[in-house]
Amino acid sequence: MDNSQPQRIEPRTLKGFRDFLPEGMIPREQMIDTARQVYRSFGFSPIDTPALEYLEILTGKGSEETDRQLYRFQDHGGRDVGMRFDLTVPLARFAAQHFHNLGMPFKRYHIATVWRGENTQRGRYREFMQCDFDTIGSLSVATDIETGLVIHDLLVALGFEQFTIRLNNREVLNGLLEKLDLVEKATLILRSLDKLSRIGPEKVAAEMVTSAGTSNEQAAEVLKLSELSGSNDQVLKDLAPLVAGNEVGEEGLDRLARILSGLQAAGVSGSRIQLDVSIARGLDYYTGAIYETFLDDLPDIGSICSGGRYDNLAELYTKQQLPGIGASLGLDRLLAAMQELGMIEKVRTPADVLVTCFDSEQLERYLQIASLLRSAGIAVELYPDGKKLGQQLKYADQRGYPLAVIAGPDELSQDACQVKDLRSGESSQKSLDQDGRELIDHIRGLLGR
Amino acid sequence: MDNSQPQRIEPRTLKGFRDFLPEGMIPREQMIDTARQVYRSFGFSPIDTPALEYLEILTGKGSEETDRQLYRFQDHGGRDVGMRFDLTVPLARFAAQHFHNLGMPFKRYHIATVWRGENTQRGRYREFMQCDFDTIGSLSVATDIETGLVIHDLLVALGFEQFTIRLNNREVLNGLLEKLDLVEKATLILRSLDKLSRIGPEKVAAEMVTSAGTSNEQAAEVLKLSELSGSNDQVLKDLAPLVAGNEVGEEGLDRLARILSGLQAAGVSGSRIQLDVSIARGLDYYTGAIYETFLDDLPDIGSICSGGRYDNLAELYTKQQLPGIGASLGLDRLLAAMQELGMIEKVRTPADVLVTCFDSEQLERYLQIASLLRSAGIAVELYPDGKKLGQQLKYADQRGYPLAVIAGPDELSQDACQVKDLRSGESSQKSLDQDGRELIDHIRGLLGR
Repeated sequence: MDNSQPQRIEPRTLKGFRDFLPEGMIPREQMIDTARQVYRSFGFSPIDTPALEYLEILTGKGSEETDRQLYRFQDHGGRDVGMRFDLTVPLARFAAQHFHNLGMPFKRYHIATVWRGENTQRGRYREFMQCDFDTIGSLSVATDIETGLVIHDLLVALGFEQFTIRLNNREVLNGLLEKLDLVEKATLILRSLDKLSRIGPEKVAAEMVTSAGTSNEQAAEVLKLSELSGSNDQVLKDLAPLVAGNEVGEEGLDRLARILSGLQAAGVSGSRIQLDVSIARGLDYYTGAIYETFLDDLPDIGSICSGGRYDNLAELYTKQQLPGIGASLGLDRLLAAMQELGMIEKVRTPADVLVTCFDSEQLERYLQIASLLRSAGIAVELYPDGKKLGQQLKYADQRGYPLAVIAGPDELSQDACQVKDLRSGESSQKSLDQDGRELIDHIRGLLGR
Repeated sequence: MDNSQPQRIEPRTLKGFRDFLPEGMIPREQMIDTARQVYRSFGFSPIDTPALEYLEILTGKGSEETDRQLYRFQDHGGRDVGMRFDLTVPLARFAAQHFHNLGMPFKRYHIATVWRGENTQRGRYREFMQCDFDTIGSLSVATDIETGLVIHDLLVALGFEQFTIRLNNREVLNGLLEKLDLVEKATLILRSLDKLSRIGPEKVAAEMVTSAGTSNEQAAEVLKLSELSGSNDQVLKDLAPLVAGNEVGEEGLDRLARILSGLQAAGVSGSRIQLDVSIARGLDYYTGAIYETFLDDLPDIGSICSGGRYDNLAELYTKQQLPGIGASLGLDRLLAAMQELGMIEKVRTPADVLVTCFDSEQLERYLQIASLLRSAGIAVELYPDGKKLGQQLKYADQRGYPLAVIAGPDELSQDACQVKDLRSGESSQKSLDQDGRELIDHIRGLLGR
């Protein structure tokens, strides 16, 4: 007992904040790695921005809700500062500030932590990671198509097979509303349309009439969007008469068709893409293509990757018009889903082999064996203490090691060691001669490499 | 001009905070990747902790200086909170809180951002990344050796050849001070010893006499430590009489010898390790082995990877005694050094090939070529707009692309494309037949894969 420390501080984390232990952090790192690899394969470059920004930068763009949730304070120089609550506002500030150095089109990914003083009763965290990619400075349909391709490749790379990417284009709805002379009532109509899955078409229609002031006929016409069904080709065909004669709507429809066709040309199975012109989420922000992504086995968790096209990213900070398109992978939601679907192996170590310390007098031999394996690309932990072998093997088991190397005096005198497969319980002796070739090959075989 | 936004907010970052553009972020990500890979190869597991902690957790351990630099505020629930200023205090809190779930020994790495309201006039940043690894719960010399091995492998993996890892053991000095009956004056003596390289041995000796109250003979005896030179074996030999007869000193010396021998057994060249028993930095914190690492070509930038052994990590938060050893890679310092040594290639894209958009009517063909290459593991950016080819090639050049693919109507009618090597200016036509095998092989060859 340490009497010089009578008053201990209780070790605890703040509400809404999390520690990540290895078993949680290993799959998280793997997911981030996969996302980075996919983003990079399309030429997106990494950037980073500060966690702290001038408060005026952050409050300029956000909603009342984000303003309220902002972690804000005065720094040592008396400046009003805040912690970033998303990666879009920092991107807008960044693009405006560095516009002349970036070159357009500019494709970036940004994987970083954000903070929101949310109500944790809704199961939300106050610190979480966002994983965004965006292409700025191009209006081309190629970037609309690519956004869907990235989402597709990302999910495949993460190991998903059954998923559906839902696609909409805000211009189709714009065209329809223009045709119906309802443009000024768009916000209220969207707000009603957004409730479709919860309250059903009759109540949505009624609400459009009472709150947005549409006629019954207009509400019925808008709701036709949600009644479209069948194949994507069928939906395109049935949409045509709804927007016919309106330029914006016809262009929007044509663009939808080109996005679909482009995705298929690039190898995306048509069954994974679903036109859904009733997606209303984000319609007040997005101006063109909109994507949402659902796991077929767990649709209720909601969209795990969403995004869309916007006209003017950084209007608060620059007169440069910066259109773009991007999306964000929901890391936490996706990790929870993978856990639920049994897609995550529970391991507590990133290494492959535990080299035991049978006899601490032989430490240098064990160090040599560990170095030998490491130089062959096999990750190795050396147990540091000469505890009982049973205890060391129990440690290996708890950490989730598939293999342990054991070398007692008998083996070492023959310049050999035992490899124990902790999954099957089988052991076999391997020579350390010839730079341990036999040992390395055997371990690679057991690890399936 | 957009008249609805007359008041723009100036896009700017806070003093001491940095944006990372792709050309800065790509080498940074690569360095972090390398560090992670090396840490993992020794069985260190990733963890993460919140950016915000209860203020009492952070102010408990830090010095007056860190307390003053702390970013602190009240959160929405009126709690006093602060942003972490290092990764050691969070590790201590984490280890105390999760002790029963971790299992010992516990090896973790933690690569994360920390914040300090530093004086930026000293060239310091207020937001920077730390890159730490620690082994907790073992007193074994194996973990002392391994810490040196990790540092060694890290620098080799980063591409360094000329570097020196300096090694000390606090116990040697402890033993000498015990022998000289100076234990109670240790702090003041260390403070003087720390000035050795700046003010020289005479002034250090004088200061020991005046400020710590040693005799001239005692000061001379302590300074003998700094006079030791020659090979590591020679230093060990010359140290022996200085600590002879004192148990702590003799044990410390023996441990130094075992660390040196272990490092060499594991394959570290003796010329890269240098015993330096005058390292005084951190001697008030570390209790055993101490490491510092210097680049032979840039010694003046200071140690780029430092660490050591401690007796009791988490005494403020738990009665569990948690000894350990660890070190921290100085990412920013090392990146600056690599820049200065010309070790960093200036690229602004993580991809290999730009597929140009010669004719936007042929977009789907270009999408197919890009997908083809991507599925062969080649990272590809597709230029999204049908601008003039010259403009697209200029873009490729500015981004640092080594290769561009160009396919006009002639090539496409032959089911082929041109590959232009932007380094040499040479072009050659390759077939897209047979899943583009000829194209893929050619590009792999040009990329040296």
